[in-house]
Amino acid sequence: MTVLARAARRYLLPLFLLMAIAPSAQGAEVLASWNEGEAKQSIVRFVESVSKEGSADFVPVPERIAVFDNDGTLWGEQPMYFQLLFALDRIKALAPQHPEWKDKEPFASLLKGNVKAALAGGEPAIMQIVMATHSGMTTDEFDQIVSDWIASAKHPKTGRLYTEMAYQPMLELLSYLRANGFKTFIVSGGGIDFMRVFSEDVYGVPPEQIVGSSGKTSFEMRDGVPLLMKSSEINFIDDKAGKPVGIHQHIGRRPIAAFGNSDGDLQMLQWTCSGPGPHFCLYVHHTDGEREWAYDRQSSIGRLDKGLDAAADSGWTVVDMKKDWNRVFAFEK
Amino acid sequence: MTVLARAARRYLLPLFLLMAIAPSAQGAEVLASWNEGEAKQSIVRFVESVSKEGSADFVPVPERIAVFDNDGTLWGEQPMYFQLLFALDRIKALAPQHPEWKDKEPFASLLKGNVKAALAGGEPAIMQIVMATHSGMTTDEFDQIVSDWIASAKHPKTGRLYTEMAYQPMLELLSYLRANGFKTFIVSGGGIDFMRVFSEDVYGVPPEQIVGSSGKTSFEMRDGVPLLMKSSEINFIDDKAGKPVGIHQHIGRRPIAAFGNSDGDLQMLQWTCSGPGPHFCLYVHHTDGEREWAYDRQSSIGRLDKGLDAAADSGWTVVDMKKDWNRVFAFEK
Repeated sequence: MTVLARAARRYLLPLFLLMAIAPSAQGAEVLASWNEGEAKQSIVRFVESVSKEGSADFVPVPERIAVFDNDGTLWGEQPMYFQLLFALDRIKALAPQHPEWKDKEPFASLLKGNVKAALAGGEPAIMQIVMATHSGMTTDEFDQIVSDWIASAKHPKTGRLYTEMAYQPMLELLSYLRANGFKTFIVSGGGIDFMRVFSEDVYGVPPEQIVGSSGKTSFEMRDGVPLLMKSSEINFIDDKAGKPVGIHQHIGRRPIAAFGNSDGDLQMLQWTCSGPGPHFCLYVHHTDGEREWAYDRQSSIGRLDKGLDAAADSGWTVVDMKKDWNRVFAFEK
Repeated sequence: MTVLARAARRYLLPLFLLMAIAPSAQGAEVLASWNEGEAKQSIVRFVESVSKEGSADFVPVPERIAVFDNDGTLWGEQPMYFQLLFALDRIKALAPQHPEWKDKEPFASLLKGNVKAALAGGEPAIMQIVMATHSGMTTDEFDQIVSDWIASAKHPKTGRLYTEMAYQPMLELLSYLRANGFKTFIVSGGGIDFMRVFSEDVYGVPPEQIVGSSGKTSFEMRDGVPLLMKSSEINFIDDKAGKPVGIHQHIGRRPIAAFGNSDGDLQMLQWTCSGPGPHFCLYVHHTDGEREWAYDRQSSIGRLDKGLDAAADSGWTVVDMKKDWNRVFAFEK
């Protein structure tokens, strides 16, 4: 069989089946968890205007770059960043190998079950916890650790796997954009190596389309075997003004659409929405204290304060989770 | 994610990719500038084995990552790296704004036309030249400068545009791999912002699939307009042991095929060809002093010494440019 014939069998048949069951990628059908309203309409309007050949705002496919924050934008971030919950679990798992932690903060408080006291040390305490759990192993070993954790650990409030706490409307939005020729990237303050483990399965975003914070890695030969070791030295913090820098470094062109939920995303939205061509910026506003969490200007996690003002000034779309989403998580009835 | 969205992602994209390429992706036809022989056969054997469903060595499409060095692998690098020739041209263009350069090396010698004396200062002199020409402007301004230069500057020996000095057999190889589901990346010691200007047109490799050396950039608001400024501080050197690190940082998974031409690519090939699954490593050996240049173990540019030994030890493919390529450049009769 020729390559062509093989490819035809592989791709055309499923395509015809697909066309038979679902003839279109129209926004209204694909964005099923979005209520009718200005937020949904603004998305559909933008996507149709840039993807319709002959439209004044038409953008060629290679330039259809969309960037998404992760924590609080694609999945939950309360009562604390999920990656921090991973790190806390790892501290407990590693404690037998670190007897010195019994007398050393923030580890001592953590091991006594007092998370609040442990985190009272602020950013330096958090960095110590992250570094102790994210370095000193090969990249392959770290992948395996995260992979095991993400497959089994449960969220303290919902009792669900963390991957189940991806926002259903945002998954639909990712798919809708890709169905219209967009390349979707995650640009997050979270750890790049952490997110890559599950991003393809959960979000359909492959590892090479993840931008995030990172520690330095070093190439070593050990007994003739090449390894990449994760060190405790910070390489890059992909947050606030770091986000446009990370976008430039990894993607190398300015996105035309950006999605965030906090002041940490503000510069990413500013950078995206000051581009010369058509562009679209959106903030997810956490307004649903029942199905999810309600927080904004005063929150220590995912604070959305300057961003709300900028959105109003600039005419960016603000999603009211309570009003605009008929479903937050896929596991809801 | 809905069934529809998942299906669209899975089937529509490959279909469009398939339609975008020629109807047949047979190696023998596509690799027209490659002579029959072990080098060509080894490539075709590998590609067919990983892309044939049911083959013991089958690799799913998302994992078909191929990485290419640029200078000396995809285009020429003699009599010196083309990016250095760009920097030398820029020094001349910028000289009127820098009267102090008349008495300051390496600029003084350069401006007198004595390139050899200017570069006698070695790496520090080269860094001074690169920094003076690659920083102090926005990323958009730098793009424009490179864009203007690459569209007009001519190679000192061939009199051709630098983009015409891409190796025709390697362009065919890039296409052949992509036609078989590979995602092709450039992983080069050259400047990431420099290469991105022409990589999509010349190689079909989009900006987000370029890994390279870089200076730091910073995000600034100037009169309410967000800018990314290029600073003279080094961010990352993507050479030697830096190449596997750059691959991990940008791509986040281990390639299954790697192509280089110098000792600077050795660690990239080692990393790729020590992966757990099928893998393929290839060195381009510059053996053709008539159509191109002949150099290897003793060359200061593109030295291939340890790499030749490693290739022999490891059974990697070595391309003898004189013997294996019936055409080097597209402009040849």
